[in-house]
Amino acid sequence: SIDGQRLWSSLMAMAEIGPTENGGSFRLALTEEDAAGRRLLIEWCEALGCTLRTDRVGNLFLRRPGKRDDLDPVATGSHLDTQPKGGRFDGILGVLAGLEVFRTLHDRGIVTERPLELVVWTNEEGSRFAPAMVASGTYAGEFSVESTLARKDRDGVSFGEALSACGFAGELPVGEPRLDAFFELHIEQGPVLEEEQEAIGVVTGVQGMRWFDVTLRGQSAHAGPTPMRYRHDALASAARLIDRLQALAMADGSGATKVTFGCLEIDSPSRNVIPGEVRLSVDLRHVDEGELDALEARYDRELAAAAEAFGVEAASERIWASPVVNFDAGCIEAVERAARAQGVPYRRMMSGAGHDSVYVSRVAPTSMIFIPCRDGISHNEAEYATPEHCALGAQVLCDALLERANR
Amino acid sequence: SIDGQRLWSSLMAMAEIGPTENGGSFRLALTEEDAAGRRLLIEWCEALGCTLRTDRVGNLFLRRPGKRDDLDPVATGSHLDTQPKGGRFDGILGVLAGLEVFRTLHDRGIVTERPLELVVWTNEEGSRFAPAMVASGTYAGEFSVESTLARKDRDGVSFGEALSACGFAGELPVGEPRLDAFFELHIEQGPVLEEEQEAIGVVTGVQGMRWFDVTLRGQSAHAGPTPMRYRHDALASAARLIDRLQALAMADGSGATKVTFGCLEIDSPSRNVIPGEVRLSVDLRHVDEGELDALEARYDRELAAAAEAFGVEAASERIWASPVVNFDAGCIEAVERAARAQGVPYRRMMSGAGHDSVYVSRVAPTSMIFIPCRDGISHNEAEYATPEHCALGAQVLCDALLERANR
Ligand SMILES: NC(=O)NCCC(=O)O
Ligand SMILES: NC(=O)NCCC(=O)O
Repeated sequence: SIDGQRLWSSLMAMAEIGPTENGGSFRLALTEEDAAGRRLLIEWCEALGCTLRTDRVGNLFLRRPGKRDDLDPVATGSHLDTQPKGGRFDGILGVLAGLEVFRTLHDRGIVTERPLELVVWTNEEGSRFAPAMVASGTYAGEFSVESTLARKDRDGVSFGEALSACGFAGELPVGEPRLDAFFELHIEQGPVLEEEQEAIGVVTGVQGMRWFDVTLRGQSAHAGPTPMRYRHDALASAARLIDRLQALAMADGSGATKVTFGCLEIDSPSRNVIPGEVRLSVDLRHVDEGELDALEARYDRELAAAAEAFGVEAASERIWASPVVNFDAGCIEAVERAARAQGVPYRRMMSGAGHDSVYVSRVAPTSMIFIPCRDGISHNEAEYATPEHCALGAQVLCDALLERANR
Repeated sequence: SIDGQRLWSSLMAMAEIGPTENGGSFRLALTEEDAAGRRLLIEWCEALGCTLRTDRVGNLFLRRPGKRDDLDPVATGSHLDTQPKGGRFDGILGVLAGLEVFRTLHDRGIVTERPLELVVWTNEEGSRFAPAMVASGTYAGEFSVESTLARKDRDGVSFGEALSACGFAGELPVGEPRLDAFFELHIEQGPVLEEEQEAIGVVTGVQGMRWFDVTLRGQSAHAGPTPMRYRHDALASAARLIDRLQALAMADGSGATKVTFGCLEIDSPSRNVIPGEVRLSVDLRHVDEGELDALEARYDRELAAAAEAFGVEAASERIWASPVVNFDAGCIEAVERAARAQGVPYRRMMSGAGHDSVYVSRVAPTSMIFIPCRDGISHNEAEYATPEHCALGAQVLCDALLERANR
């Protein structure tokens, strides 16, 4: 069985890289901090005799040989990048739990039938380069390598430039290696397991999500002499849209409708200038694809109404759509058996967050393991999971991997 | 009579300094562009034999001697600083019309009884350093010199540092020289004169205005798995506040209530993060002080309600209050006589924008002259006034100044 203390130490050591003021992590994708986190992991894995391959979009593949190296590896992993003010567990736990499994096998001299592969996917968060999970998506064929390398951050730096600058532009063709199966451990990032006092989530799939970039163009004018009825206030129109969609989502008694406006920026803001142009981002989610279509249609109508109400022009671009995903029944059952073996309360559940498993599941049998996180909080410096839950999750991961690799 | 063509040429020459993409001006207070505009004006005035004095907050006083230099000067002027994407007339017209008056008197060899003074007030716009009209306010005793020099822009640069860096920190004690009277020509910055087809506004006073800095503190969390009812969304709460106050202002049939949210910033924004903290600015205006009190009380209640509705903490600081101002009856009448003499339609009116005259009027008899601007648009690169209206305004200014200076 895995060493929970050692896992915790590696989590805390990784958190030393890009620490934030309030105890969180800053390792935005392909920054110097992200690169330093990757180098630390590589050092740890190479000490165990693993070999590294890096593909053209910076995904890292760390292989632990098996008895049958002609067979596709059983893989695990997640991401090391974080939100601008992110936590110490989101993504990192999945990677370091994989490391802990490797260390445990190493200590016991265990060699699995199939090789094992620990994968670090690039830019999972989608905060620096939209969309999220872009490099696992490229691996799975959803995005072309060229389009991924060309994506730009808010400062106009491309993914390809950032990748080269931090030294992780590899040679491995994207899509290699093929995987026999993929298992990902992650914190839940929501409140369900904690509230229900369950220790493990057996993840059966992921809700659908759609991202939009919106521009509202009105007319800047003077805050003092301009009568209200003459205005074309882009911010007022954004506020109307946000308020209406919030109300709509909150009115859904099932709780399944989720609407978030994460970014909003006024062009050349000034206290006494009516905002002439506003750009904002919209994130719509639902576990049901039909309901998500209906939500998008409603969003379109509310945007048009908000623009009309304030005499503003609206342009909305759907920059990403990730459909509802259902994981592989065999992998789900493997996770469930491993959870049951621990004798702890668990539940089958859908994920509210996107994960690299979403795209990997298109090309390899996949499922995920969740553990609770405090107050359901993630994407926040205060994100926390207990050492016990981390160890438990890693044990379930270990058992599912071994079962599959020795099958 | 003044030379309208020459006035237009000097306006266009000034607009060459800090030109923006869409035909406007960028000369944010105490930037290199602002300094270059000032140097050009000084060169023009010194060629007419005027002498320059600069006070400790960077206000420029350009004197044209009179027959009785022991008497206080009759003054005119305005500001040369602009909004980040400002127009070519707001402030600049008032300064360059004063220059045109000086040039006309120079050409004719006219010497007035009292000396004349052309004044350029620092940081009128309030965009870089809040509040607006801070240097004329300091001149009039509303703000201490120390507090003004200590004010910081968004990058943490102080007014005093910026003033020294651009070479306009003078020696003249703030409050000197005393003025016999002050007349300021300005574009209306609103639609009334244009709509009513009137050529001149005889300005009787300025509406009251109050500025607030608001911080909304919620909790950042993941956009995907966090149920709507668990959220503490600072942006949703800001949107509610904006939408409610917009509706309130628009419902005032008199059109006298004005509410503007010019700045809004999310802390560490990311598409898939529920905004944890938002800062915004509020600008409330009304021509009636009692109604402005009522508006502020209502704003406080709406802020509390919006915070409560989204489980967010609100902190609001009133950073500026400029009460309703009534100008000097004698100066108003002088402007009205000069307008009537032109034989054009004019009206008495209140100003919706703050102007340096607001503070100067506390220490010297003051009034203002407005001319129409296209579509009532200001604080916008498209701001425009016709050469004919500019010339007419300058002529009215000239006549009012001469009447007062020779009285
Ligand atoms: N796990 C995680 O935070 N993923 C980011 C993608 C998303 O927005 O759901
Ligand atoms: N004239 C002008 O634009 N003044 C700025 C101060 C205000 O916000 O009214």
